[in-house]
Amino acid sequence: MKSFDVLGIGNAIVDILIQVDDEFLKSKNLVKGSMQLVSADDAAILYAGLGQCIECSGGSAANTVAGLASMGASTSFIGKVHDDQLGQVFTHDINTIGTSFTTPPSINGPATAHCIVFVTPDAERTMCTYLGACVNLTEEDIDEKIVRSSKISYLEGYLWDPEPAKAAFRKAIHIAHDEGNKVALSLSDPFCVERHHEEFLKLVKDGVDILFANQDEIKMLYGSDNLQDTARLAQQDCDIVAITCGAGGCIVINKDEITSIQGINVTNLIDTTGAGDLFAAGFLYGLLSKKPISECGALGNLVASEIITHLGARPAINLKDFVKKIVN
Amino acid sequence: MKSFDVLGIGNAIVDILIQVDDEFLKSKNLVKGSMQLVSADDAAILYAGLGQCIECSGGSAANTVAGLASMGASTSFIGKVHDDQLGQVFTHDINTIGTSFTTPPSINGPATAHCIVFVTPDAERTMCTYLGACVNLTEEDIDEKIVRSSKISYLEGYLWDPEPAKAAFRKAIHIAHDEGNKVALSLSDPFCVERHHEEFLKLVKDGVDILFANQDEIKMLYGSDNLQDTARLAQQDCDIVAITCGAGGCIVINKDEITSIQGINVTNLIDTTGAGDLFAAGFLYGLLSKKPISECGALGNLVASEIITHLGARPAINLKDFVKKIVN
Repeated sequence: MKSFDVLGIGNAIVDILIQVDDEFLKSKNLVKGSMQLVSADDAAILYAGLGQCIECSGGSAANTVAGLASMGASTSFIGKVHDDQLGQVFTHDINTIGTSFTTPPSINGPATAHCIVFVTPDAERTMCTYLGACVNLTEEDIDEKIVRSSKISYLEGYLWDPEPAKAAFRKAIHIAHDEGNKVALSLSDPFCVERHHEEFLKLVKDGVDILFANQDEIKMLYGSDNLQDTARLAQQDCDIVAITCGAGGCIVINKDEITSIQGINVTNLIDTTGAGDLFAAGFLYGLLSKKPISECGALGNLVASEIITHLGARPAINLKDFVKKIVN
Repeated sequence: MKSFDVLGIGNAIVDILIQVDDEFLKSKNLVKGSMQLVSADDAAILYAGLGQCIECSGGSAANTVAGLASMGASTSFIGKVHDDQLGQVFTHDINTIGTSFTTPPSINGPATAHCIVFVTPDAERTMCTYLGACVNLTEEDIDEKIVRSSKISYLEGYLWDPEPAKAAFRKAIHIAHDEGNKVALSLSDPFCVERHHEEFLKLVKDGVDILFANQDEIKMLYGSDNLQDTARLAQQDCDIVAITCGAGGCIVINKDEITSIQGINVTNLIDTTGAGDLFAAGFLYGLLSKKPISECGALGNLVASEIITHLGARPAINLKDFVKKIVN
């Protein structure tokens, strides 16, 4: 069987992108920068009230593996779509970038997941996700052979919301570690961390080798407002930690060092959707290339700087050429 | 019943946008700038070979009414989607801009139409259209009350491809003229004009009051390479003619004058998809506002200059504000 650098396990989602102003968010009681889960009915009502939208593939871990594939890594993805048009769009987009995606689509039950992404003039994104077919991802969908043959299994925290996916999550961690492979986790969203606080803390301590979080998420996880304190706590729990700080760049942590890496100044900022996902792609590509973690952080910053210059969370250019200045 | 400024009758299509280079077009034997019809199988094969795409609503007449609605005109649309996810996307996007769209979706038969739009670095677009559910638009879908209550019925030449739609087309023209309303036609594509040359010429002479064409289409229609000659021939056949000349602006024609209107210099040219459709929107909005045709042409140029600065054929901004400098 083909071996993979990174296996992503996450929600298989098509994004519905719309540019709105801050007043709109207020009128819908949406907290800027957050992701909230909505029912099919609520998603339909919300969508009906929106203007002209653009649809394109999304999903946190899926964005990350798409970024890795674009840089030349061998990647695989496990996630659940329904056998419908948006499912076909998702499948096309992840396959076309060279990612192996063999999870069978669900035939019955809810439609392919979609996430309504509200992009405000400050390029911040606020998301309402209808999980749809994603809730049908179960332990059975975790292909043991794929997990065993992947150097890193990358999991998104969002997957911790649907109950059966948690079991899938745990199964993947168990298999990966049994094979001596690494497990990476993205905390995804501060509200997601808040919802599952104790479970996430246990997961990070016991099952995660490489942790990705932004400042809000890591503070929420360790219940502290002090970033330096949380960095030191995270250092004790995981081999490698990367904390993204928006325009401020990132903090990278291993057993030996806690280092801050300056962000890249982006003048044509359009949409921060996928910034964290693509940071993770760049960082993991650095790790796979055996770079020191400071260079991994710089690579994460660089790749994130591309995704925020256009609408959507999938790379608009070939990232292999784009990152040549850092990785040959 | 509510009365409408403009009724658009056309193919109900969702665009699948992808940026490619010229080599790609050559490798697929695609003629740059053209639209060709493809089968479901060919569309699927083509799509499978493409990279990451963006999906958004399109369709020539639909783009025009969306533009008119964005400027504040009251609009209606007749076209056929299937009852599927892309049909819902199309319906959402045309409804949300304030256009009345009541054509019932087809329940059986082919899926909602899609058009794969290849955008080259020179911003030119080349299109492969799978007509899908559009072929199910028939005379029955032409709601007589809507046609009678619309000042202008705007038809796209592309609709002349599916046989049953021709009958729908003729019915709409008959009703509009019976009520003393105007009929506008866009020639859509030189190859479309070539395919249906004699029929189009008869249609233009007998049934069209306002004709839209680009230089290639009008030359093809009148079988002449001389633009001035074709302009004079068109002047004899229709009350009003607008010929778009790309960056060169447009030529506007009525019984009294043939006038050239300079184009607007656009520095950030991205994608010309919808340029002709939105030119027509601006021009018709000028006519509805009782402007002289030279101002209608300038308004067409202005609105077209917005659509070519971003991917996709639907306005990214509120055109009502955008055109205020010309129309109050």
